[in-house]
Amino acid sequence: MSELTTIRLSEQQCRNKLGAVGDALYVIGGKWKLRIIIALEQGHKRFNEIQRAVTGISARVLSHELKELEINGFVQRKVFADTPVVIEYELTQYSSTLEEVLDALSRWGEMHQRRIRSQP
Amino acid sequence: MSELTTIRLSEQQCRNKLGAVGDALYVIGGKWKLRIIIALEQGHKRFNEIQRAVTGISARVLSHELKELEINGFVQRKVFADTPVVIEYELTQYSSTLEEVLDALSRWGEMHQRRIRSQP
Repeated sequence: MSELTTIRLSEQQCRNKLGAVGDALYVIGGKWKLRIIIALEQGHKRFNEIQRAVTGISARVLSHELKELEINGFVQRKVFADTPVVIEYELTQYSSTLEEVLDALSRWGEMHQRRIRSQP
Repeated sequence: MSELTTIRLSEQQCRNKLGAVGDALYVIGGKWKLRIIIALEQGHKRFNEIQRAVTGISARVLSHELKELEINGFVQRKVFADTPVVIEYELTQYSSTLEEVLDALSRWGEMHQRRIRSQP
């Protein structure tokens, strides 16, 4: 039989993994959150700079996603009392716990880019 | 300064990572695909068995997601000409390239489960 047989999960392992991945996706799932976090890995950015980096996101959606990322502790919003007021977003220390997830996803995406891009 | 400074990405690295993760999410993003793959890590399953394992998924959505997973080469649909006909789904060898991604996500979900579950 194939290699897959050897890594087959038990019912309990499967249920635990489903729960854990479900919880993770609940917080960082969706089309945009991880991309916004990556954009901020370059350093703090203003709203418009994030929107330029994350191709395709609308201002309305970005605003909503930033609020959720802030609530969940990944992003910090900083207001500087200049004239005009400057608002910047930056990653929190907590967001660095996602490093392994982001690296795995990015490696997978890279490895499979050619295959993916040839899909109909 | 914080640790974050040292892992700060350059603009090019940031753009590459955004592209790679974007491609990955294009294929395996969304609420259900990774969960369906985990359910099948336990071994081949019939449609109803997958639906029971992946809590909350409707038959219509599961059917749609299975078709996309098949098109993208992660899942194989097998038809056995019994009476009645038996249809089973199983993972392909290609799906095992996702092991690192799934393990990273599941570890993150586990580690942060308590924090996540206490969110408002």
